[in-house]
Amino acid sequence: MRIGNKTTGVRLRIVLQPGIALGPGKADLLEGIVATGSIAAAGRGLGMSYKRAWSLIEEMNRDFRTPLVTTNKGGKSFGGAALTESGERVLKLYRTIEERAETGSRTEIRALRRLLGDISK
Amino acid sequence: MRIGNKTTGVRLRIVLQPGIALGPGKADLLEGIVATGSIAAAGRGLGMSYKRAWSLIEEMNRDFRTPLVTTNKGGKSFGGAALTESGERVLKLYRTIEERAETGSRTEIRALRRLLGDISK
Repeated sequence: MRIGNKTTGVRLRIVLQPGIALGPGKADLLEGIVATGSIAAAGRGLGMSYKRAWSLIEEMNRDFRTPLVTTNKGGKSFGGAALTESGERVLKLYRTIEERAETGSRTEIRALRRLLGDISK
Repeated sequence: MRIGNKTTGVRLRIVLQPGIALGPGKADLLEGIVATGSIAAAGRGLGMSYKRAWSLIEEMNRDFRTPLVTTNKGGKSFGGAALTESGERVLKLYRTIEERAETGSRTEIRALRRLLGDISK
């Protein structure tokens, strides 16, 4: 999980259709749900309000053919959340694309770094 | 030049150092300066305020070892702007990385599209 501009590397926003995009916020949220089993906790870990986290999940569940996240509305695991098979697939595809964008352009990224004022890299 | 989430494809933010990032806004602005020879016109073309355009350019000129954009403060070409050699290099590297992120992951991006509600793609 990478917050804003604090960690070096490549951040990716993939516009799948006009108005439908998958970016670092949604991907990190999906990852946070895997890690915590909770939308609230995943959002908190990203400094995201509960409302914001829910709105991103509603967006993803609406945009994709099958929901990416399921929630338990009752019983022992009340409030819990998990990725569906489709959610896991989307997260994995996103991370693969992200990883490849970085490793595929190591030379160019290094060249950009060398042009920076602080040439310690 | 691609505006927001309207054009499908990959948008890239490259965090070169903590706090120093190069993203679609800066890249499109550099490209707009090449196209128009003017910071104001480049900003306008992107729906960016003059203040915002200037602030991004000041940021880039400060972050990189040599300025990316030069401006003419007087004479016939008063108000004109152009990329320095370093500016051209940075823009080219950014576009190469962006292009490669997209072509390198065509299969995965197509797989993501197929998972969308509207499966026309």
